[in-house]
Amino acid sequence: MNIIIKDHFPMHKPSLSGLLVLLCTLLFSYPVVAEGNSAVEENRHAIKHFEPANWWVGMNYHQVELMVHGDNISATQPQINYPGVQILSVVKTDNPNYLFVTIDIAAHTKPGKFPIEFQHDGKIQSRFEYELLARGKNSAQRQGFSAKDAIYLITPDRFANGDTKNDAVAGLTEQPDRTFKGGRHGGDIAGIAQHLDYIANMGFTQIWPNPLTENNQPQYSYHGYAATNLYLTDARYGTNEEFKRFVAKAKQKGMGVIQDIVLNHIGSKHWWMNDMPAKDWLNFPAEFIATNHRRTTVQDPYADPQDKELFVSGWFVKSMPDLNQRNPQLANYLIQNSLWWIEYAGLSGIREDTYGYADEQFLSRWAKAIMDEYPNFNIVGEEWSTNPAVVAHWQRGKENKSGHVSHMPSVMDFPIHETLRQVLLEDESWDTGFVRLYEMLANDFVYADPFNLVVFPENHDTARIYSVLNEDLDLFKMAMVYTATMRGIPQFYYGSEVLLTSPKERDDGAVRADMPGGWKGDTKNAFTGTGLTAKEKESQQFIKTLLNWRKNSEVIHRGKLRHYAPQNGVYVYVRYVDDKAVMVLLNKNKQAVTHPLLAYRAFLDGKKKAVDVLNKREVDITKPLSLAEKSSLIIELQ
Amino acid sequence: MNIIIKDHFPMHKPSLSGLLVLLCTLLFSYPVVAEGNSAVEENRHAIKHFEPANWWVGMNYHQVELMVHGDNISATQPQINYPGVQILSVVKTDNPNYLFVTIDIAAHTKPGKFPIEFQHDGKIQSRFEYELLARGKNSAQRQGFSAKDAIYLITPDRFANGDTKNDAVAGLTEQPDRTFKGGRHGGDIAGIAQHLDYIANMGFTQIWPNPLTENNQPQYSYHGYAATNLYLTDARYGTNEEFKRFVAKAKQKGMGVIQDIVLNHIGSKHWWMNDMPAKDWLNFPAEFIATNHRRTTVQDPYADPQDKELFVSGWFVKSMPDLNQRNPQLANYLIQNSLWWIEYAGLSGIREDTYGYADEQFLSRWAKAIMDEYPNFNIVGEEWSTNPAVVAHWQRGKENKSGHVSHMPSVMDFPIHETLRQVLLEDESWDTGFVRLYEMLANDFVYADPFNLVVFPENHDTARIYSVLNEDLDLFKMAMVYTATMRGIPQFYYGSEVLLTSPKERDDGAVRADMPGGWKGDTKNAFTGTGLTAKEKESQQFIKTLLNWRKNSEVIHRGKLRHYAPQNGVYVYVRYVDDKAVMVLLNKNKQAVTHPLLAYRAFLDGKKKAVDVLNKREVDITKPLSLAEKSSLIIELQ
Repeated sequence: MNIIIKDHFPMHKPSLSGLLVLLCTLLFSYPVVAEGNSAVEENRHAIKHFEPANWWVGMNYHQVELMVHGDNISATQPQINYPGVQILSVVKTDNPNYLFVTIDIAAHTKPGKFPIEFQHDGKIQSRFEYELLARGKNSAQRQGFSAKDAIYLITPDRFANGDTKNDAVAGLTEQPDRTFKGGRHGGDIAGIAQHLDYIANMGFTQIWPNPLTENNQPQYSYHGYAATNLYLTDARYGTNEEFKRFVAKAKQKGMGVIQDIVLNHIGSKHWWMNDMPAKDWLNFPAEFIATNHRRTTVQDPYADPQDKELFVSGWFVKSMPDLNQRNPQLANYLIQNSLWWIEYAGLSGIREDTYGYADEQFLSRWAKAIMDEYPNFNIVGEEWSTNPAVVAHWQRGKENKSGHVSHMPSVMDFPIHETLRQVLLEDESWDTGFVRLYEMLANDFVYADPFNLVVFPENHDTARIYSVLNEDLDLFKMAMVYTATMRGIPQFYYGSEVLLTSPKERDDGAVRADMPGGWKGDTKNAFTGTGLTAKEKESQQFIKTLLNWRKNSEVIHRGKLRHYAPQNGVYVYVRYVDDKAVMVLLNKNKQAVTHPLLAYRAFLDGKKKAVDVLNKREVDITKPLSLAEKSSLIIELQ
Repeated sequence: MNIIIKDHFPMHKPSLSGLLVLLCTLLFSYPVVAEGNSAVEENRHAIKHFEPANWWVGMNYHQVELMVHGDNISATQPQINYPGVQILSVVKTDNPNYLFVTIDIAAHTKPGKFPIEFQHDGKIQSRFEYELLARGKNSAQRQGFSAKDAIYLITPDRFANGDTKNDAVAGLTEQPDRTFKGGRHGGDIAGIAQHLDYIANMGFTQIWPNPLTENNQPQYSYHGYAATNLYLTDARYGTNEEFKRFVAKAKQKGMGVIQDIVLNHIGSKHWWMNDMPAKDWLNFPAEFIATNHRRTTVQDPYADPQDKELFVSGWFVKSMPDLNQRNPQLANYLIQNSLWWIEYAGLSGIREDTYGYADEQFLSRWAKAIMDEYPNFNIVGEEWSTNPAVVAHWQRGKENKSGHVSHMPSVMDFPIHETLRQVLLEDESWDTGFVRLYEMLANDFVYADPFNLVVFPENHDTARIYSVLNEDLDLFKMAMVYTATMRGIPQFYYGSEVLLTSPKERDDGAVRADMPGGWKGDTKNAFTGTGLTAKEKESQQFIKTLLNWRKNSEVIHRGKLRHYAPQNGVYVYVRYVDDKAVMVLLNKNKQAVTHPLLAYRAFLDGKKKAVDVLNKREVDITKPLSLAEKSSLIIELQ
C-alpha cells in the first residue's frame, strides 16, 4: 500500500496530514486505488492507478476501457471471473507501465464487486477490486439544462468559504492567500452548498461551477482549468462524495448542476506527466509550442494544414499540456471520464471548455457518446468567436461543408455576448447601437438550433458587465432583461446581482472577486443583505424579480421570437406561443419617449390583460406607451 | 406621328432640335415607335410605346409579352398574321391605355418584319411594324466575364467627352455643367470608345460602365441610376446603335462589356409616371415611403414581415420610384428588357444594382431566365453588406434556409472590400491588420462559389482607395496586388491607376471625378501620360504590369488558393493549379523583413524557376526572402 500511496501523489513528500487526506480520498472518492492481499504472490507490478475505478450496469456505454498504471504492468495478463463481465481486449502502449483493458458489461450483470487480477509467470501479481454499481432511477432520461433554466456561473474558490479546514491541504502545493487576486481564497463546495437557498431564491435553476477537479498546480490553481487528476475533486473544494451530495441537495431545491469539463488540456502537474501513458498522449510532447488560436482554420477552405494543426495541437500555455485526443486510449479515457461524472454525481449538463481546440473527430465522438447515453442531456461548448458562422459549426444538426458532424446540443453565444456589451455603450444611430444587436440576431439562420444557445452578458473570462457599462444601473438592468428574455438559455455570473465590479480590461483575478458574505468577517454580505448599498439591493431585487418571473414563464421557455428593426433608440421584441405573448421594450434614450404600439398590434389585439412584469402593474396597451429613460419594460400579454 | 412624338417626351416643349433628336432616336435606336399608314382607318388608339420593339428568332425565351401603350388601346384586339408567330394571350390592366400581348415565336420562324394590328369595331385602329431578327452567331453560348478577367468600372459622364455635340440635348432636361461635381460633365460612349486601346493596354478585359440608359432627370442625372426609359441609351451618352458598335469594337480588342442594370427602381421622370401601366406597378404608389435598408430581414428568422416589406418596397429616394416586381407584367417587362440588351448589344455580363431590394421571387426568376438563355453568361449582384452570410444568400447554388433559390452566378464581395480597406490602414497585432482579412476570407465556406465573387478595392460609391490609404503608394499597390491575385474576379475603378483622389468620407460627385485627359484642354492626360507626376506614372505602370501579367496567368484564372495565418505583419497566400503556383507575399511592416519560406515548401520544392512578376527578376527561394518595407511580392513558380 505504501507504494501506491506514495506514487498517487508523487510530487510531494508524505506527511501525516497528507496521509490522512489520502486516506479520506480513498474512502470517499474515486478513483480508489485498492488492492487485495490474498493470493497476490509478488508485488512486482503493483497498481498505482486504475481508472475508472467503477462503472455501472445497464449503461449504453457498456464496453469500458480501463487504464491500469503500474510498474511494468504490461507484462501481466488481466483476468476477470464475474458473470456478465468479460475482457474484450488488452492494449499495450509504448510505455510498459500501462495496460488498457476493455471489459464488456452485459445488461443482465448483477451489480457488485469483483477482483480484476493481473498475472505473470502463472502468478497473480496484482489485483484490483472493481465495482459495478446499479444506476440511479431514470438516470438515462435525466433532463439537461434548457431554455427553462437560468444558469448561475460560480468561481468556486471565490464564492464562499464553507469549510476553512480545507483551505490548505497537505499534498496540494498552493497555499491559501486571500490577499493575492491570483491566489486561492478558500471558497469551496461547502460554501456553495450553504447558500443553495440564496441561489434558488434568486431564481437560478442551474449552477455551473468552474472546474472542481484537482488542480495541484504550484500557482494560479484557483481557476480550475489545469487538472492534475480528472477523477478527483480538488481537496480544497471538498471530496467527490461531497460534490455528489451537493448536486443531490441542489436537485432537491430545484436546481441542476453543470460540470465544467476540459478536454483540450491538463495541468502540467498531472500525474501522467511523470510517466506518460504513451509517447503520443500529448501534442508536441517534446517542447512547448503555443496554439496560434486561429479558430477559423477549422472551416477555412484555404487554410494551411499546418496552421490548423497548430491551432488544435499547440498548447494554451506552458502550464497546460495539450492532450492528443487522436490517441484512441486517451479518447476513450476522456469520454468515459465525462460519462463517469454525469452518472456518478448526477449532473444536468456539461460546459466544455475551449471546444474547437480539441480534435474535431474526437469532439464529435465524445458528444455523441454522451447524448447516446443521456438523450435529454445538454452540453454547451465554448467557441469564443464573434462570428456566428464559426460558432454554428459546432452545434448539433449543423450541416457543415467541412464534413464535421457535431453532436453537441448547445454553444455559447459569444456573438450576441460581444454585441450586447458593445451596443449598450454606444450611441444610437442608423448603423450603431441596437441595430447591431438586431442584425447580429438576424444571423440565427446559420444555427441548427438557436433556441438552445447559451446567452450571457459576462463570464469568468470577461470584465464585469456593470463596470463595462460604466456602472450605469439602468443599462445593467437592460443587459439582464435582454439576457433573461432573449431566445436561448440565460447564464449569469455570481456577484453581479450585487454589482461586483472589475477593471474594464480583462483582469481575471479581479473579475473573479470574492462574493461579499462568503467569508467569515465580511462586513458586506450579499446573502443576508447586510452592508449592501441601496443600489446593490435594488439590483439584487431586480434580478430576483426578473428570474423568478422567468422561472414560470412558459412563453420565455418555449416561445417563438419576433423582433422589430430598432427605431429612435427603442428596440422591441416579442416572445410568443399560442395566444400568449411577452413583449420586451428597451429604451436606450437618455430621455423618456412615447412609443406607438401600432407595429405590434398582431400580438396586442384581443389580449385581455397586459402586465408590466417588473413593476407588477397593469399597462394600457390601447395607446402609445410611455417609456422611461434608459428603461426596460417587460409586458406579459394574456 | 405628331401625337406619338409629342407623348414620347411628354415633359418638354417640342423644339426643332428636339424633333431632330427624336428622329434620330427613331431611326437608330430601340424602341422605335412606328406605325404604318395603310389601312389604319382611324387613329383613336394611336400607339405611343411598344416594347420591346423587336425580338429574335431562336431564343429560349420565345414567348414575349409586348407592352403596348396607347389611348384606350385596351379596347382593341391585336392580330398577327405571320408564319410561326401567334398571340398566346392578351392581358389588360386597370389602365385602359395598356395592353400586354404575349406572342409565341416558333423556332422555325423566318426573321423579318410584319405588322401587328389592333382592331376595334371591325376596323384596324393602329398598327406596329414588328421585327424578328436573326440571332448573332454563338449568341447563346457567349462567354460571360469570369476570373480570367479584370473589370474596369467607368462612370461614363466622367471618363472622356468624345462627342461634345451631345453634351446638351434638347428634350433632356439637365444641361452640362462641368463646374458642378453633381452635374453632367459631358463624358459619353464616344469618349470611352476612343480610349479602348488605353483600357486594353492597361490590361483590363471587361468594361463596366455605370448605367447608360436614359436618365432624363432634372438634376444629378449623371450617375445613371434613375432611368426614364429602359430601352433607350441616354442621348448625352450616344445612341443604342452607338452603344452596340462600342461593344463590338471592345470585343475586337479583347474586351467584354458589362451592363449596369437596375431592377429595383426607375427615375421619377420615367414616362410611366405620367400614365402608370397599373395601379400596382410601383410600391407605395400613393406617397413616398423610404426603405429602411434593413437587408437582414430577408433571412432573419425573427423579422417582422412589415420590416421586410418596407425594406423591399420602400423607395431609395423620392426621385427613384420603387418598382413592384410582383406585378407579373412588370416582371416580364424587366426580364425581357435585360435579355433584349444582352442580345441587342452583345453584352458579356450584367451588374445588377441594389440586388436584395427587389422582390426575391422575381430576382430568382429574372436571373434564371438570363442564365437559361446564356448558360455561360455572368451576372453580379450588389449586396452591400459586410456579412458574408448575408451576401452568400444571393449566389447561385446556395442552399438557403429561407427557401430562396438564386440563379445569379456572382455577387460583389463587399465583406472583403471593406476588410481590405480597414486592414491596410491598421497596425498589425494579434487581432488587427492582416488577420482580419485572413479570417474574413476563411468565411468562404458560406458561399456556393467564392471563386466567382467580384473583388474590388473601391467603386463609384466609395471614397477613392488611394485617399483612404492616406495617399500611401505602397499600400495602394498592395490593395491592387491583393485584388488582382485573390480568388474571384477583380474590379477596378477608372482613374485610380493615375491616383485620383477624393475626400475620405463618401462624396459621390468628388469620387466620380473627371478622368484627366478626357476633356479637350486638360493639361494632365492619363491616356498620353502628359502632365502626370512621377508617382502617377509609377502607379499606372505598376497596374499595367500587374494586369497584363494577370491576363495570361492560368494559375490566377483557375488556380486554387491556400493562405497562411499572418505573422509579424506578413501575409502570404498561394494560388496553384497542377504543378504551377503563384505565391503572393504582402509585407505591411514599415521596415524590410527577412521572411523564412519553410511554411511554403510544399509549393516551392521541385520548382525550377521563381520569378518576381512585378520586377521581372528571378528569385532565390532556397533561402529566406528579403521583403522590402510595405511591399507586395508576386512570385511565379514553375
